[in-house]
Amino acid sequence: MTATVQLELISSIRSIPDYPKPGVMFRDITTLLGNPKAFRRAIDELVHPYAGTKIEKIAGIEARGFILGGAIAHQLSAGFVPIRKKGKLPHDTVRIAYSLEYGVDEMEMHRDAIQPGEKVILVDDLIATGGTAEGAVRLLNQMGADIVAACFIIDLPELGGRKKLEALGVNVRTLIEFAGH
Amino acid sequence: MTATVQLELISSIRSIPDYPKPGVMFRDITTLLGNPKAFRRAIDELVHPYAGTKIEKIAGIEARGFILGGAIAHQLSAGFVPIRKKGKLPHDTVRIAYSLEYGVDEMEMHRDAIQPGEKVILVDDLIATGGTAEGAVRLLNQMGADIVAACFIIDLPELGGRKKLEALGVNVRTLIEFAGH
Repeated sequence: MTATVQLELISSIRSIPDYPKPGVMFRDITTLLGNPKAFRRAIDELVHPYAGTKIEKIAGIEARGFILGGAIAHQLSAGFVPIRKKGKLPHDTVRIAYSLEYGVDEMEMHRDAIQPGEKVILVDDLIATGGTAEGAVRLLNQMGADIVAACFIIDLPELGGRKKLEALGVNVRTLIEFAGH
Repeated sequence: MTATVQLELISSIRSIPDYPKPGVMFRDITTLLGNPKAFRRAIDELVHPYAGTKIEKIAGIEARGFILGGAIAHQLSAGFVPIRKKGKLPHDTVRIAYSLEYGVDEMEMHRDAIQPGEKVILVDDLIATGGTAEGAVRLLNQMGADIVAACFIIDLPELGGRKKLEALGVNVRTLIEFAGH
């Protein structure tokens, strides 16, 4: 990715100080999504390394990962699999607990959503501490998925999420980085 | 759309009896989304009437409308705008109350997400009573959007949602119908 493209993506993201709480700088991707050129650029840049690979499923993490994952599934002619907060999927599910900043929560997928050996790309908008993404990786592993990559538009490298996924053997792809929280 | 395509889409949807409560037949689109051919077909069929129109924004209703809306925005090279449950968007919002089966809830959009006169397509997976979609239409109207169409994969015509939107002057596009709830 060229420096120009990177600058285009960075400048399309809105930074909101003290949200959701004092001291946190929130990186808001809705301004990127609403910009047709930036949205298309982000999707194309995220997936072009996998254009030659037959990807069966895109797994998107609720809720912003649904927007990006829907677009990526369309771009790669793959199926889409939602990873949702517990209690929102109507059929038989596999569930896993994952760590949040304070406490734990649970996420789930439909048990028949992925067949063992299927090539899957995991998608979310941002990786910070990586608690949610790690839960999703463990869930996909439990289902026998072949995780080709985990893709995020934004990496907050100081929070260590990328390293956490890489320690699990996952290939992580991100487009831009921001310092701090 | 040919009868063959319609049958392909109908057969890709899973029907779950007595969910979320006794007497309701839930139409589960996750099996359609997970099927690459059916997913692509549904997106292509939904948007092909608008391929010649310059659509600026796709407004997707949380959460399943995010998946379809992301794919449609990518297909039409439009921007994507999330319509979310209240309290989930980080910047200045416009909010509206809407009717649920029992009681009311509120949904919102970022105030700067759509400029007056922009051509917008509203997207969700299913239209039933149309309470949520009607709220979204009113919100878009409030922002001065030019609503080109409201698109849904599934219509439950007995519940009257399509007529509710049409009474507001909205062009409604759906792909398949199911009888009953």
